[in-house]
Amino acid sequence: MPASPANDPSLRSWIDIQPTDDFPIQNLPFGVMEVPEWGPRLAVAIGGYALDLYECAQLGYFDSIAEDVPELGAALPKVFRRRSLNAFLRLGPAAWRAVRERVSELLRHDNPALRDNELAIRTCLLRQRDVTMLRPVKPTNYVDFYSSLEHATNVGVLFRPDNPLLPNWRHLPIAYHGRANSIVVSGTPVRRPSGQYRPAGQEAPVFGPTQQLDFELESAFIVGQGTQQGSTVPLAEAENHIFGLVLFNDWSARDIQSWEYQPLGPFLGKNFASSVSPWVVTLDALEPFRVAGPAQEPEPLPNLQATGEQHFDIELEVLFQPAGATAAPLVISRTNMRHLYWSMAQQLTHQASNGCPLDTGDIYASGTISGPTPGSLGSLLELTQRGTQPLALPGGVELGFLRDGDTVILRGFAEKNGLRIGLGEVSGTVLPAAD
Amino acid sequence: MPASPANDPSLRSWIDIQPTDDFPIQNLPFGVMEVPEWGPRLAVAIGGYALDLYECAQLGYFDSIAEDVPELGAALPKVFRRRSLNAFLRLGPAAWRAVRERVSELLRHDNPALRDNELAIRTCLLRQRDVTMLRPVKPTNYVDFYSSLEHATNVGVLFRPDNPLLPNWRHLPIAYHGRANSIVVSGTPVRRPSGQYRPAGQEAPVFGPTQQLDFELESAFIVGQGTQQGSTVPLAEAENHIFGLVLFNDWSARDIQSWEYQPLGPFLGKNFASSVSPWVVTLDALEPFRVAGPAQEPEPLPNLQATGEQHFDIELEVLFQPAGATAAPLVISRTNMRHLYWSMAQQLTHQASNGCPLDTGDIYASGTISGPTPGSLGSLLELTQRGTQPLALPGGVELGFLRDGDTVILRGFAEKNGLRIGLGEVSGTVLPAAD
Repeated sequence: MPASPANDPSLRSWIDIQPTDDFPIQNLPFGVMEVPEWGPRLAVAIGGYALDLYECAQLGYFDSIAEDVPELGAALPKVFRRRSLNAFLRLGPAAWRAVRERVSELLRHDNPALRDNELAIRTCLLRQRDVTMLRPVKPTNYVDFYSSLEHATNVGVLFRPDNPLLPNWRHLPIAYHGRANSIVVSGTPVRRPSGQYRPAGQEAPVFGPTQQLDFELESAFIVGQGTQQGSTVPLAEAENHIFGLVLFNDWSARDIQSWEYQPLGPFLGKNFASSVSPWVVTLDALEPFRVAGPAQEPEPLPNLQATGEQHFDIELEVLFQPAGATAAPLVISRTNMRHLYWSMAQQLTHQASNGCPLDTGDIYASGTISGPTPGSLGSLLELTQRGTQPLALPGGVELGFLRDGDTVILRGFAEKNGLRIGLGEVSGTVLPAAD
Repeated sequence: MPASPANDPSLRSWIDIQPTDDFPIQNLPFGVMEVPEWGPRLAVAIGGYALDLYECAQLGYFDSIAEDVPELGAALPKVFRRRSLNAFLRLGPAAWRAVRERVSELLRHDNPALRDNELAIRTCLLRQRDVTMLRPVKPTNYVDFYSSLEHATNVGVLFRPDNPLLPNWRHLPIAYHGRANSIVVSGTPVRRPSGQYRPAGQEAPVFGPTQQLDFELESAFIVGQGTQQGSTVPLAEAENHIFGLVLFNDWSARDIQSWEYQPLGPFLGKNFASSVSPWVVTLDALEPFRVAGPAQEPEPLPNLQATGEQHFDIELEVLFQPAGATAAPLVISRTNMRHLYWSMAQQLTHQASNGCPLDTGDIYASGTISGPTPGSLGSLLELTQRGTQPLALPGGVELGFLRDGDTVILRGFAEKNGLRIGLGEVSGTVLPAAD
């Protein structure tokens, strides 16, 4: 597919953008905001602002789309006033692209249409700090993959020292179904879950607040258009079903998880909450950051054999702010999405290979992304060797697992030739367990 | 809670009911039907008929509810015209009970209101064979438990002969998340999935149609009212969240499942399709069939300690009809839901114990229900020892795993003192794999 004109690196906006901003005019990610007294609105992020797509439509700024494709023009204002992106996503890739490209035109430094209309700007352009972002989609299905070779190996060593990487791992992207309705948007506090676990050295389990609360650094893709039950998706077409990417924190209670997970996989150790970033960065915007993935050995079976560059070069960071701290959050891990062994396209093709239907708004997370070095691990489980080697942080903080009041922030961005396309961030603070 | 007057065993209907009917006047299960040209309608089953609740409401037959509770009266007609029970379920237990009791009154042999109104009968009462039943709920979450001790042990022996029942099993109701959007209603054909599996004795996996397609005999409960994220449900209150029961066939591709399931549990071996029966039998209607569950040893932790009778005495049958057969389906297994080790209340309390939110319409399946005898096993995996000991059926059929064209029917009913409360049936026929 030809690159979108909205990706042109020479574009500049009449809105002031700093070089370290995640949301320059070449990004234009989509989200859902709650505007006081107006209700939910679909929005596009630009610099520190959110552009209200519904108000833009009301003011006629999408009339050119309506002239080209009347049905789309008729559909847009309605979907721009929903509580999730789902209805917009159902309109399909041509609609997503048309809207992103029109927004790009409106924000170009040399286009006076919105730039010089002060009243319209006051209506359409809100500071991000003045709005509340909502969960961007209403997911029907949430699946968590396990696609980082380094993470799977690290965890395998901790839980199955004699058998760290299972024989199936290099043949297919291992995954499990998670809980779609406990996914929350960045900024939502996460209550420490209680559950059943077996303290080390004891025979009998106990029930109580988890003692091993962890984060997991993940990316996730969001399905734009789904599939019918019984149909499959060839690898070459997989990305057509992907709308965009978010950051994903798959909070985990390691003690609950390790006691319950055999033989049917993680359940209560995971499903109390997962957090997503609010702005969905389109696959279109990430086009300049494609890279080849790691060599796959043995070669996958034909339906999963990759051709071309289907991985993405996206820097990822974990920041940590201890309970009560006033200093800025501290980076405790840095890695890159390109380390993933299985691409998003391979994950999607595998998911659909048995005829299982995909739905608009589905969230498919990568699994924890760990890199090859000690400073590039995506969970405290790995960073602290299951809590036995706490991280020594400034201020005398010894971080084993998460304490009440601790805040975890995940950030991600792609950067090349002076162009930075950021995923924004997903943050969450731990609340004490309920009584 | 006092027994509902709709449960009175002496009630008779003016509609002719045979003693072997699943749906006498004491049952009155809820479902959703598609009526040609009218669209979806909520309905109640009575004998071989389906009572159209929307038309009943239009004709004023629920006006007495509106007089008692005006808001409920206003809500009912709308929810009776939806494609799922969800909106009706959200109205809460008092609403479900009021509607069931009013329907019971309308169908009593001595009530002329509907009985003697021929025109109304023609509008409201349809033969079940003339309507298409839809999936009764739109599930947000589908969870599959693993609560039959016999099944867990039988499967454990096949997959882990040295370690059949894992140490956690008797301490908590093991479960995993399944795929909510591939659940289909009884009668929907199920296409044989393709997938990756490793043929016996080979090192490398292959991709192709499953060679080990199986059924699983399960019951499932449907959540009426959900919970907020972060809140839990004490065992004594768990049943307040359960609307009713259905039969559930958790189709399984054993070769795909056994290759993929470690370490994160079943995924593509299960999520291509599951089938539910169309009529949801309320917990109210099953009240007379409560029994104590099996002794639990060791005693569960306090939050899961059962008090009173929270199991149900429901006979279950698997019927099989080979491809091309004209003879009636043959019973190949008989068991009882009372064999389950963990009750539905324990399952629900466990699910909510970490603050994970429950939603209206959620489906929580029991896991395969096997009894203690060879004729009471709930899957071909167990009945045929993983296909190695095929069942010899009349007509020279050797049944190892399911063949294209085979039909599986699950039935369930409770029976005591001449009263039979049936769950109806869930059936499905295997279609050949896609090209």
